[in-house]
Amino acid sequence: MPIIRSTLDADLQYLTQKIAQEVDKELMSPAGGFVVEQLMELAGLSVAQSVAKEYPLTKYGQVLVCCGPGNNGGDGLVAARHLWHFGYKPSIYYPKHSKKELFQNLVTQCNNLHIPFVDILAVKSGDYSLIVDAIFGFSFSGAVREPFGEIMKILAESKVPIAAVDIPSGWDVEQGDVHHTDIRPEMLISLTAPKLAAKHFRGKFHYLGGRFVSSDFAHKFGLELPAYPGTDQCVRLP
Amino acid sequence: MPIIRSTLDADLQYLTQKIAQEVDKELMSPAGGFVVEQLMELAGLSVAQSVAKEYPLTKYGQVLVCCGPGNNGGDGLVAARHLWHFGYKPSIYYPKHSKKELFQNLVTQCNNLHIPFVDILAVKSGDYSLIVDAIFGFSFSGAVREPFGEIMKILAESKVPIAAVDIPSGWDVEQGDVHHTDIRPEMLISLTAPKLAAKHFRGKFHYLGGRFVSSDFAHKFGLELPAYPGTDQCVRLP
Repeated sequence: MPIIRSTLDADLQYLTQKIAQEVDKELMSPAGGFVVEQLMELAGLSVAQSVAKEYPLTKYGQVLVCCGPGNNGGDGLVAARHLWHFGYKPSIYYPKHSKKELFQNLVTQCNNLHIPFVDILAVKSGDYSLIVDAIFGFSFSGAVREPFGEIMKILAESKVPIAAVDIPSGWDVEQGDVHHTDIRPEMLISLTAPKLAAKHFRGKFHYLGGRFVSSDFAHKFGLELPAYPGTDQCVRLP
Repeated sequence: MPIIRSTLDADLQYLTQKIAQEVDKELMSPAGGFVVEQLMELAGLSVAQSVAKEYPLTKYGQVLVCCGPGNNGGDGLVAARHLWHFGYKPSIYYPKHSKKELFQNLVTQCNNLHIPFVDILAVKSGDYSLIVDAIFGFSFSGAVREPFGEIMKILAESKVPIAAVDIPSGWDVEQGDVHHTDIRPEMLISLTAPKLAAKHFRGKFHYLGGRFVSSDFAHKFGLELPAYPGTDQCVRLP
């Protein structure tokens, strides 16, 4: 198992944007041996499991999953599929479909489950009990193009809890909400390791997902990861 | 969720070899939208979770995972990795390394965790508390080449429990142990849906893994799958 710490007590395990990108690149290098489909599957599964731990199906069945154009959106598409298998009724807002086969496949998998892809009007009029924010992740650089500005405004004004995937959308990966998105997720699911922005998270539930890091890899990048319980793909952070 | 039955009471959900191959092919067709890395990840994870449910770490930490040359072996490599993350100390017997990138990547991932790849001498002298049999799966056609005959003989004489992935190795996919392997697993983890050979399984624990089947897909192939509990990737069958 990776290096185990009972508490997140040091700074070095909060990743900068640059280190987060290096970590991701190395995992998928020949030395890391992973393909993106594998890591995205485990990441999306850990998001769905984290959500299920705190937002029970009976009360939070109607989930809106908001997916951006990149890998954060891909994690969202995978999470939506697993949430469906867990018995939730997800809907997906995914306004910019990527042309990459990876994403087209993830859409096909959701279509085969009849998970509805909804437009912004349906989002506005919909009755959701929970929103998963998978719009932007650790590659976000500060430029928001429409229609993502509009959906981020809806998230900022949301009356229902938001579970953010890796980074609350629009937040600076290191400095938090310096662009004033006013998105305040109740849950944050950090993937692989928390990014610096997580230090500014004030919601109720901080989870970590992505149970695929080797000890050598953790050492190399100075990651101090907590132990995951049992066979869970996610762990709640203190 | 797929069609739910409280008991496995009909025959049609036990797949013939031909239907099992068609199911696999269709999942990975453009209409199914999955790639092999994704399905193998979920299959291997479900194997590791099933094992962890019945063979606790404290008593069964030393696991030997025997991997064949094809996809059943790939499921075994993924399961070994997840078992390591769960805290087990797996060793892997994988005498015929595939040259395909898929398998080379899975080996790299295990090497990065320092999971030992052992030879037949180490297998014979090793002190294992559990064996995972991932040698042959539903593509098996009756011809066993060395060194797999030797390892199958070791499995037949094993004093420790065996958990078989999808099909006990060397069994006919439909008729069971008609080739007299004498391999008698205590656990069988059927993947996607049980094959006909599972009707001849007399061990203690029959699990199902592979929580990725849509209702439409289940209907098309006449699969009657039980409900998976909570967020588990496996379910115990009656």
